[in-house]
Amino acid sequence: MSVNLTAPNPAELFPIAGVRIGVTEAGIRKANRKDLTVVLMDEAASVAGVFTQNRFCAAPVQVCREHLAAGQGIRAMLVNTGNANAGTGADGLARAKSTCQALASRLGLLPEQVLPFSTGVIMEPLPHDRIEAGLEAALADARADNWARAAEAIMTTDTVAKAFGAQVLIDGVQVSITGISKGAGMIRPNMATMLGFMATDACVSPDLMKQLAIDLAEGSFNRVTVDGDTSTNDSFVLIATNRAAHALITSLDSAAGQALRAAMLDVAKKLAQAIVRDGEGATKFITIQVDGGRTQAECRQVAYAIAHSPLVKTAFFASDPNLGRILAAVGYAGITDLDQAGIDLYLDDVLVAHQGGRHPAYREEDGQRVMKQSEITVRVLLGRGSASDTVWTCDLSHDYVSINADYRS
Amino acid sequence: MSVNLTAPNPAELFPIAGVRIGVTEAGIRKANRKDLTVVLMDEAASVAGVFTQNRFCAAPVQVCREHLAAGQGIRAMLVNTGNANAGTGADGLARAKSTCQALASRLGLLPEQVLPFSTGVIMEPLPHDRIEAGLEAALADARADNWARAAEAIMTTDTVAKAFGAQVLIDGVQVSITGISKGAGMIRPNMATMLGFMATDACVSPDLMKQLAIDLAEGSFNRVTVDGDTSTNDSFVLIATNRAAHALITSLDSAAGQALRAAMLDVAKKLAQAIVRDGEGATKFITIQVDGGRTQAECRQVAYAIAHSPLVKTAFFASDPNLGRILAAVGYAGITDLDQAGIDLYLDDVLVAHQGGRHPAYREEDGQRVMKQSEITVRVLLGRGSASDTVWTCDLSHDYVSINADYRS
Repeated sequence: MSVNLTAPNPAELFPIAGVRIGVTEAGIRKANRKDLTVVLMDEAASVAGVFTQNRFCAAPVQVCREHLAAGQGIRAMLVNTGNANAGTGADGLARAKSTCQALASRLGLLPEQVLPFSTGVIMEPLPHDRIEAGLEAALADARADNWARAAEAIMTTDTVAKAFGAQVLIDGVQVSITGISKGAGMIRPNMATMLGFMATDACVSPDLMKQLAIDLAEGSFNRVTVDGDTSTNDSFVLIATNRAAHALITSLDSAAGQALRAAMLDVAKKLAQAIVRDGEGATKFITIQVDGGRTQAECRQVAYAIAHSPLVKTAFFASDPNLGRILAAVGYAGITDLDQAGIDLYLDDVLVAHQGGRHPAYREEDGQRVMKQSEITVRVLLGRGSASDTVWTCDLSHDYVSINADYRS
Repeated sequence: MSVNLTAPNPAELFPIAGVRIGVTEAGIRKANRKDLTVVLMDEAASVAGVFTQNRFCAAPVQVCREHLAAGQGIRAMLVNTGNANAGTGADGLARAKSTCQALASRLGLLPEQVLPFSTGVIMEPLPHDRIEAGLEAALADARADNWARAAEAIMTTDTVAKAFGAQVLIDGVQVSITGISKGAGMIRPNMATMLGFMATDACVSPDLMKQLAIDLAEGSFNRVTVDGDTSTNDSFVLIATNRAAHALITSLDSAAGQALRAAMLDVAKKLAQAIVRDGEGATKFITIQVDGGRTQAECRQVAYAIAHSPLVKTAFFASDPNLGRILAAVGYAGITDLDQAGIDLYLDDVLVAHQGGRHPAYREEDGQRVMKQSEITVRVLLGRGSASDTVWTCDLSHDYVSINADYRS
């Protein structure tokens, strides 16, 4: 079950000139499911990535960082589902590198021109031989209009594939953007989501790519949480193929830079929010907006405290306006000089608490009405400044427990 | 359901000379249940308390702090269940003070000599009139051997009453210690538990009382977590009635101070662990021990990251040795220079991961065997120092979701 999330719209998944994608069934964990994806980029493409801040980052994340730093130009990516290759030590690193070597030699590239990605169960040895055996079929499948199948092939406990696109005029030239992502548990990205890939044919200076990737992740993947568990494998990769016929974008502050950033952020937000809408066991999509803070960081801190509270999340699941739980989470968010007498709480348009206490005009049936919706906005006014931030999350249901008690079986 | 927790043993609940307790049914939230407790102390008693660090602390917590600071000598406590009187603003403060005034006038005390405590639902007005109407019956019930009934009267979603006692020789004189506590959700105490009360007839200098209370809370209530939600009402109160015939204890470093501290800490740990054993929906009692850290604080940080991970907690519920989830939690605990290659993970005596990767000799059936137990120790060796810390927690089950989705109904 997911919250107001439908299958990708093929008309929106624009082929990106300079990018080809191939998908196959490699039998990595389960038979008869697409589980291996290759992404091929031509020589003109620039690639940037941001990765998990988890210190137990997976072997492929370590290899991605190393290969991006090598500066040889990234020309291919290799994505497997079914196995995260995390908590696997030196052996896991060797297996990740072996798959890069195998793909590189088939393509006449250096291993450092390949980025590996893995998602699935942790602390099991990566079946690199099966991945390598599947490369031929994946390469034979490579074509430009394969985004929807790639979105399916990177799923784990996701119930709906996640892919979005957009087109935007840059200097009068139509530019395309397409992205895919996957969740659905261990989601509290810290720099990026579990796996997210976006490509555009826009022309972006290589120097700007990393900044753009960080900027997009900050406004999208770094603002969602399902269960507060920051994954070992979070990776967000941005590809610009530089094929569109407009002048090179060298600053995000230029008109062209702003237009591209806005269009890409729109797609990135949809991808990130889709992960929450399809969060494990999710029945509600909740926007948590915190206003009136001294800094954006403290607003985010309060928003995450609310988003991670099991008591708040189960109240949403039950459609129970037990809203004191939200105030409790605000109180323990770690702002040591917070004055409860300055705080207001809204549920959509309903003023629930005013100056730290239940508002006299608040009626339980108004709270109940909003809690029954599938999309809810919690708004907290801290009353101590003008900063704001927003986080998106979902509820905590019986299905979350079932899914995670059964995931490996 | 609780984990290896039995009803209090009456033989262990020693009356404390100088303390009388009365209990009644005041109909605060539900009919036909004990929900109001008064604790009366004679003039020789010293009282110290530690309270929640939640900035949305409840009205009674604010009043407790004010009354303790007033320095008039605490002579009575008033505890209600069924309503937390939190998130209630200025009106909540007035109602809490009204109950203190009502009890004080019946006892010929100043209102500042009464400490109020509340636990239950947040953001509902405290029915102070019902509390005040119940005082006469509670006072009529007051006697020294009422600890077990008080432990029952402070329960909310607890399934088992929590009370423990001990006796210890101080300077050859037998001293008694008795304590009670309650949980069972919104449990991640930050200074103290939801409600915990301990009394002893030992003679402790008033100056030492606050230090002893902090010291005991640090070693017990501040090391347990059920759901990571720090309550608005956490309060831990220590009473020394100074009736035993030994010399006044003026330092915790003295032989007598050490003996008293050790005996009281033993009781405090049992009370705190009982809260976890009876945590909402708990089916497993889990000890998380982190060794080899640079500081105790970083060990605690890692232990809490593991203890709060919904993925780790659901794996324990499922008895599924999906232990990579523990490594992931270690990785995102926030130690930015942690080297995964130095980390070992044990489940009881089973070495699961060595130097950051799955240990070659680890067999799934060994992990499975431990995961099936009702009491499990997770031990993480950080390999970067000699500090340690321990936290106690429980699993996350379907019942946790059910209890918290239904709590108010």
